[in-house]
Amino acid sequence: MRINATAYRTIWVAQDGWSVEVIDQIKLPHVFETQTLTSVSEAARAIKDMVVRGAPLIGATAAYGVALAMRANPSDAALDAALALLGATRPTAINLQWALKELDLAVRLLPPEERAVGAYARAAQICDDDVETCRQIGAHGLKLIEEIAATKNGEPVNILTHCNAGWLATIDWGTATAPIYMAHDAGIPIHVWVDETRPRNQGAALTAFELGQHGVPHHIIVDNAGGHLMQQGQVDLCIVGTDRTSARGDVANKIGTYLKALAAQDNDVPFYVALPHTTIDWSIEDGVADIPIEERAPDEVLTMQGRCGDEVVQVGIGAPGSPAANPAFDVTPARLVSGLITERGVCAASQAGLASLYPEKAS
Amino acid sequence: MRINATAYRTIWVAQDGWSVEVIDQIKLPHVFETQTLTSVSEAARAIKDMVVRGAPLIGATAAYGVALAMRANPSDAALDAALALLGATRPTAINLQWALKELDLAVRLLPPEERAVGAYARAAQICDDDVETCRQIGAHGLKLIEEIAATKNGEPVNILTHCNAGWLATIDWGTATAPIYMAHDAGIPIHVWVDETRPRNQGAALTAFELGQHGVPHHIIVDNAGGHLMQQGQVDLCIVGTDRTSARGDVANKIGTYLKALAAQDNDVPFYVALPHTTIDWSIEDGVADIPIEERAPDEVLTMQGRCGDEVVQVGIGAPGSPAANPAFDVTPARLVSGLITERGVCAASQAGLASLYPEKAS
Repeated sequence: MRINATAYRTIWVAQDGWSVEVIDQIKLPHVFETQTLTSVSEAARAIKDMVVRGAPLIGATAAYGVALAMRANPSDAALDAALALLGATRPTAINLQWALKELDLAVRLLPPEERAVGAYARAAQICDDDVETCRQIGAHGLKLIEEIAATKNGEPVNILTHCNAGWLATIDWGTATAPIYMAHDAGIPIHVWVDETRPRNQGAALTAFELGQHGVPHHIIVDNAGGHLMQQGQVDLCIVGTDRTSARGDVANKIGTYLKALAAQDNDVPFYVALPHTTIDWSIEDGVADIPIEERAPDEVLTMQGRCGDEVVQVGIGAPGSPAANPAFDVTPARLVSGLITERGVCAASQAGLASLYPEKAS
Repeated sequence: MRINATAYRTIWVAQDGWSVEVIDQIKLPHVFETQTLTSVSEAARAIKDMVVRGAPLIGATAAYGVALAMRANPSDAALDAALALLGATRPTAINLQWALKELDLAVRLLPPEERAVGAYARAAQICDDDVETCRQIGAHGLKLIEEIAATKNGEPVNILTHCNAGWLATIDWGTATAPIYMAHDAGIPIHVWVDETRPRNQGAALTAFELGQHGVPHHIIVDNAGGHLMQQGQVDLCIVGTDRTSARGDVANKIGTYLKALAAQDNDVPFYVALPHTTIDWSIEDGVADIPIEERAPDEVLTMQGRCGDEVVQVGIGAPGSPAANPAFDVTPARLVSGLITERGVCAASQAGLASLYPEKAS
């Protein structure tokens, strides 16, 4: 998508042909900068510190991290070390494990001198596939928006989203935002309620930034506001992303998603989750019990980054001395999900629903 | 309650015998300062700008605002103007209208030369009554905590609260916090999950500050986290305050309360609302339809106040150019409320429940 009218992906190989460039998402929306990753440890740090974030982009960055490792040292030991290092960066998004497995499959059987080339090729393919996957998610989700638009007499379709499941979370298009961009581009009047998404503000910082750059009408709201807006009939549809989807359709996504799903159910607002197949963890059924939830640093809660004059600074916002807890994800049970929007179509959030779209996986 | 080991109320008449001092709640928790109010317009501004906030304290400040007006000019016209000015400061908390009516009753029939004295006396009585009311709310709520503690084998009772319905929102003790302070003082092990409460962070800034000063164990969490904690069995009880309670028990409170009530219901966590009778609006039944919800400035969402080194600064946190919407309250339907903790006891959140405690009002 475009930033200041220039088309970008979130990750690409630099002009030198081997180092990897990413958009520095910690600095957005205040400063637009890219970072250059030149080693597997830099790739791991970029994931852990959330320079890159979003389940699909985490997977893609990990893939390029393996490529960087193989370029430096194509030994079995280096491959094992790279997979272990990258695999330990973040626990919840399953795309990370999926991408590492793909890279292992792609390079393990190659002779050492071919491993770097093989890894770069597989990483590039993962990125290209993700773009196409998101485009297809957008096309399927667009139909849902068109159906609602048909009932609105030309009034905007009000869509609420949480966190950033936008193009910045993927390679391009986004998951939850792909239908939004396609609807906007098709001339359907839409308006997006952007949940701020504390503690890291990916909504106010990234989703609002994306939508603004693309010209999509939107308002930032605090995470507390969505229930009230639904109660007052001001939300027609919720679409969110997911970091891991269980085989029966439970959905781990950014902390607070569950609260919005409860409000949607209480107010008969359709609640959809957009996802590429790479977020499905076929090995887990009960997401609430079995998806590991990352606990991040208390400082993310106790401080806030923002613009103060020309500077970007961190400010302390909590009562001095008060501790904080910071679970980063929650799990929305399938019973609260109206449907899953995948690259193969829309299905019920259930074992049967997922099996209908992915018969080869649902054994 | 105590700040740095000195006992304070939130509002008092200064040593000069007429000006009114309040704790500046905009500067907490970063700086502890008081402000001196010397006119009705200063009192109105203190309410509107949230130097003072919390339904009971808003009422008390308005009462003293009338006293300041009568001291300056005890005419009927000045009385009418003061009631109108103060009455227009904030729309949702009903205590404001209640307190102004009380002051009108107390002074209207007095000869002008007695009005100031009468108004100060009534304002002081409203404050003293509020302290006693909160103490009684605490005593009734304490029983609920004791019952849960009896099932916990010495483990702490985990209580979640939203916003600040603490002593800083009242004159002393608080509403939602009164049972917490009494339980802590009685040696019952408790731990409080403090919702940050965006956009104005009254939880992270005020409730955490209060609890810390009193030595009550607590953690600040983002507003998104409570549902997950309930799902994981880490919340035994929710207690919140209210700015206006309908005759059938619908509860208008700080934006986001409704989302926590939904999560409590979904996880069988008791959800109680603590309130003095002054927050009950007997003229309204359907709170969702009929309680006016204040829309505050977008800048409260788009900026954040915090400490940066030795300074307290405002930082911009949203994507530049993105607009925000800022509804300040939401309404939790009575069906989601386990019970109302009042100064007369605990009752069901229903017409019958309230009538059982306030038979003289439920006509």
